[in-house]
Amino acid sequence: MTVLILTCEQDVTADMVVAQLHRRGVPLVRFDPGDLPGEGALSAEYVRGEFRGYLSTGGRVVGMDGLRSIWIRRPGEPAAHAAEPSPWLSAESGQALYGMLDCTSARWMNERGAAARARLKPWQLRLAHRSGFPVPATVITTYPRVARQFADQYRHVVVKTVSGKAPNDPPMALPTTLVPPDADFSDVAAGPTLLQRYIAKSADIRLTCVGGTSFAARKVSEPGQVDGRFGDTGHTWEPVEVPGRVERAITEYLRLSGLAYGAFDFAEDSEGIWWFLECNQGGQFGFIELETGQPIAETVADWLSAPADPAL
Amino acid sequence: MTVLILTCEQDVTADMVVAQLHRRGVPLVRFDPGDLPGEGALSAEYVRGEFRGYLSTGGRVVGMDGLRSIWIRRPGEPAAHAAEPSPWLSAESGQALYGMLDCTSARWMNERGAAARARLKPWQLRLAHRSGFPVPATVITTYPRVARQFADQYRHVVVKTVSGKAPNDPPMALPTTLVPPDADFSDVAAGPTLLQRYIAKSADIRLTCVGGTSFAARKVSEPGQVDGRFGDTGHTWEPVEVPGRVERAITEYLRLSGLAYGAFDFAEDSEGIWWFLECNQGGQFGFIELETGQPIAETVADWLSAPADPAL
Repeated sequence: MTVLILTCEQDVTADMVVAQLHRRGVPLVRFDPGDLPGEGALSAEYVRGEFRGYLSTGGRVVGMDGLRSIWIRRPGEPAAHAAEPSPWLSAESGQALYGMLDCTSARWMNERGAAARARLKPWQLRLAHRSGFPVPATVITTYPRVARQFADQYRHVVVKTVSGKAPNDPPMALPTTLVPPDADFSDVAAGPTLLQRYIAKSADIRLTCVGGTSFAARKVSEPGQVDGRFGDTGHTWEPVEVPGRVERAITEYLRLSGLAYGAFDFAEDSEGIWWFLECNQGGQFGFIELETGQPIAETVADWLSAPADPAL
Repeated sequence: MTVLILTCEQDVTADMVVAQLHRRGVPLVRFDPGDLPGEGALSAEYVRGEFRGYLSTGGRVVGMDGLRSIWIRRPGEPAAHAAEPSPWLSAESGQALYGMLDCTSARWMNERGAAARARLKPWQLRLAHRSGFPVPATVITTYPRVARQFADQYRHVVVKTVSGKAPNDPPMALPTTLVPPDADFSDVAAGPTLLQRYIAKSADIRLTCVGGTSFAARKVSEPGQVDGRFGDTGHTWEPVEVPGRVERAITEYLRLSGLAYGAFDFAEDSEGIWWFLECNQGGQFGFIELETGQPIAETVADWLSAPADPAL
């Protein structure tokens, strides 16, 4: 039984898991949907109630009945590398590929529907509340008046993008930024704006959860530092124990969201409380593993190596 | 409790349901996501475990805790009518809107994740098999050799797009077409191609299912007619009874797919067998209702008027 990894060529995080799978002798196929059609090819037959499908790439062929799991890491846009790419060809190729993969009984990390919903920030905040995390007060609004009231009420607030992307092309991560007290909120009417109470933090926490196993890492913040992803403070990520209350909330969050994998970001305040900032269902873990030595890639490989579910 | 209808301005099918809802005095808001931000506005607050959200359009405001159901009819792209539209603004606005709506306990027709999967043709075929429908032998392939073999085996085959769209901009429906016996399949390598055994049909069947209620309509075909959507044969849609076996398969299909609404297309052969062609989760029903007098809009209105589920 084979593990299918959907990712593009340059993906160090995937390389780490591939090495682990090789070590335990688990067959795997690494496939970039951007290579379909072209370097990649597929065929799916539906005849008299039977379904037979296979995918081939780089001279290797994998049958759909031989898939044990599918890891969606960082797949390219279907048909991106085609001789004559077009939105239509991408739609056709994506439908053929993902529609065929949905016909298998392979386990998904993560299931695509669950992943799509888990990307919605407003839904994340609601789910985090429900799961028992402390969440900083947040508003998402197109009303300048509401934004003004929120800023007045909480005094120190940060602004983030709703989708987590900046308006560049290609989109880059946009730093979370403190809002100055005299900010003019009239532009809020031009696009939904996310404001959040600023948490004066003593550390950033990154918690990577694989199946039921959590790995938490902590990096001390400089006073006044807002976005831990930007600016080098000289501090490194260190392993940290997961408080029981957080562990229970993580379990509940993954259950309600249907995710097999999630990378949680928290801000730790001076009282040691971990405030939920976000859960990235496709978050990287390579940089954490390299600094902390936590066996995350190994745990992902374990999850992917387990037998397929006997489902649809 | 309010019904929210997400659709664009010109939508006769939505008009029919709106008339029914007005008749029974059910409050409703019709909203085009293309109007956000601008004519439409929203605000969602997450404070101390509470979630409060509202959406406003045309001077009306609807609170998220007052939504009983959401009908995704034909929504525009978020921010499509913004003063300065961009893919980024669409992503931000879509995240804000759908993320907020996902926080409610409203019932969806159809739930967005279920709808996305239900659009995948390869998955539809598998699910139709599983549900007990007869499905014409089908192959989806990028191998010219496989396409050739399939055509040789079944003699009379048709070609369709996988995604159901033609490569125009904006995309139009592409007629299903008979493949000539001497067809050259080398272009199959340039894009996944769907070939299906041709069913010599005596009639087209359109079955519209709303919740658990099915409405089937039948239109006599001309001999040799391939795609019932194109070309006027002079025949009209007539109501027809749903065979018990089909009714059971419909129930199973909707259960497995998680859809509340589906428009099924069948080809009826000379022996009266209904062959599954596709299920369009967003298919129109206005033209069927006008010709058959079947109360589909009324049934949709009934479904939307029912109380909200006590869920997340």
